[in-house]
Amino acid sequence: MDEFSFINSIKQHSYKQSSLIKGIGDDAAVIRQPTQDIVCAVDTLVEGVHFSRQTMEPWHIGYRALAANVSDLAAMGASPAFYLVSIVIPKTWSSGEINQIYVGMKQLATKFRMDLIGGDTVSGQELSVSITVIGYVERNKARYRSLAKEGDKVFVTGTLGDSQAGFHILTNPGYYTDEVYYKERHQQPLPRVDFASKTENISRIVFNDISDGIANEANEIAEASKVSLILYEKQLPIKDSYEQFPPKLQHKWKLFGGEDFELLGTVSNKDWNELQIIAKETNTPLKEIGYVDDSQSNIGQVFLHENKQTYRLQKKGYTHLK
Amino acid sequence: MDEFSFINSIKQHSYKQSSLIKGIGDDAAVIRQPTQDIVCAVDTLVEGVHFSRQTMEPWHIGYRALAANVSDLAAMGASPAFYLVSIVIPKTWSSGEINQIYVGMKQLATKFRMDLIGGDTVSGQELSVSITVIGYVERNKARYRSLAKEGDKVFVTGTLGDSQAGFHILTNPGYYTDEVYYKERHQQPLPRVDFASKTENISRIVFNDISDGIANEANEIAEASKVSLILYEKQLPIKDSYEQFPPKLQHKWKLFGGEDFELLGTVSNKDWNELQIIAKETNTPLKEIGYVDDSQSNIGQVFLHENKQTYRLQKKGYTHLK
Repeated sequence: MDEFSFINSIKQHSYKQSSLIKGIGDDAAVIRQPTQDIVCAVDTLVEGVHFSRQTMEPWHIGYRALAANVSDLAAMGASPAFYLVSIVIPKTWSSGEINQIYVGMKQLATKFRMDLIGGDTVSGQELSVSITVIGYVERNKARYRSLAKEGDKVFVTGTLGDSQAGFHILTNPGYYTDEVYYKERHQQPLPRVDFASKTENISRIVFNDISDGIANEANEIAEASKVSLILYEKQLPIKDSYEQFPPKLQHKWKLFGGEDFELLGTVSNKDWNELQIIAKETNTPLKEIGYVDDSQSNIGQVFLHENKQTYRLQKKGYTHLK
Repeated sequence: MDEFSFINSIKQHSYKQSSLIKGIGDDAAVIRQPTQDIVCAVDTLVEGVHFSRQTMEPWHIGYRALAANVSDLAAMGASPAFYLVSIVIPKTWSSGEINQIYVGMKQLATKFRMDLIGGDTVSGQELSVSITVIGYVERNKARYRSLAKEGDKVFVTGTLGDSQAGFHILTNPGYYTDEVYYKERHQQPLPRVDFASKTENISRIVFNDISDGIANEANEIAEASKVSLILYEKQLPIKDSYEQFPPKLQHKWKLFGGEDFELLGTVSNKDWNELQIIAKETNTPLKEIGYVDDSQSNIGQVFLHENKQTYRLQKKGYTHLK
């Protein structure tokens, strides 16, 4: 059973709590309160699966674990406020190293004025860090991936593939241009909280954070919104020095690499100008990379224009169309 | 470094979010909202540490993992509303078994009208289940362990040692009286949510849920409230058939066994009658087991009267005093 089928099998078909606005099915859940909505999400990193000590200092593990969670809040348009940390600690980790994990989290938390308000520490065979984040968003301003509409522009923030490039450099030492930049993008990604939360005056905008790769996230938007997304390969934003890596890897990383924690989204043409202004104000690179279509036969699908051909871009990998 | 020192090392000395009422240091954190307070906690169970497949079916693991978390909300006087589940799944567990873990959680969730609103599933070497629970409590009615006062009665709900007795039966098969009862107390504990939440008209009451044993929880109250607690061994409530177990084990389980998920607390003499009425209404066994003292030399300590002697009851184990 894949994760998607599994989530569907455990998902409730109806909810009992009247204050719940959004349950399972987006980057985070949304709970209604009288003056604002509360957003919360949980994410777990396991040693050997999501990180290794070969490429991450304990400090980075903490920083990045919290960043992944905060990025989920950014994708909802929410401002982070609190976090709770549950950590499974094997005997092979010293208390000093574990402490550094918390110091890394705190570094990121401080940027966003987040408070550590709870947690649990237990012993086990492999290190795993599970973080719950709680944030606030204006009433009815949570950004759902189900709201993309025909004619919307598709956009992405920042540059793609950087995190995987950083991982490549860390595991294949050598001479690279912008080596420090790529390593930092892998070890210390900065979630796009400021950009996302400043869009509050735009009535409808869709965000999905890039944790599993743009191909995956674009498909999630297409499926949830019952539309199709058309993307242009040439438009996908990359850093200048990205071209130093083998072309096959470039292609793979920017489409399927993930962990860049940038935002993929859609917005109406009339709000595009406003969004560009917000991007400038928050120093956020913003690029138009395609559009939303609703031709009935392609609902829930994503297509990539590349070298004058069009491919169906699937969640993992892609297949030739015409 | 023990867990207490570790938590102190990572605890923030000041908080930035103005809506935070209680951070680390009680059973759960408390966040202020306009009409009510929100309470949240996280707790993780690891296979081989907190449970084994020898004594727990997958269904029980889910039920009990959620019960442990809901018990933390009960200890705050809160009503549970939501839960998020992060699960690390090893290859040795089938998807059917994992599904049963969620079915077990759902069984308990249904009792309390809780909704599953998020989570994460990742692969790893050992099964661990991390649950975040969110509940509601009336403004200023969260029950802190720091509010015990001299002259309070100390009380406990239910009977003690049952969970460990159940574990003993499961690991030492034989002929036992009330075998099913003890097994169920181990595998399917029922948190005292109804009893705790119905105390809302009592202005001050202290609760601490018994997850690590009454000795541990009594010390937590004594330390947080800067008082001493005097308990009477003869008063500790046990089930009639509990005396079938070896006296040494009886003694150990009821004081240090833990996992009964009963509530230990203190309340003023004037509210004792009201509390007894609530106990009757919610069908909750309630027993007075001691009192709160504030003799300056014993602050933060717990004492046990047993066989005409008085012992200092420490978090783990106890030492002879006089």
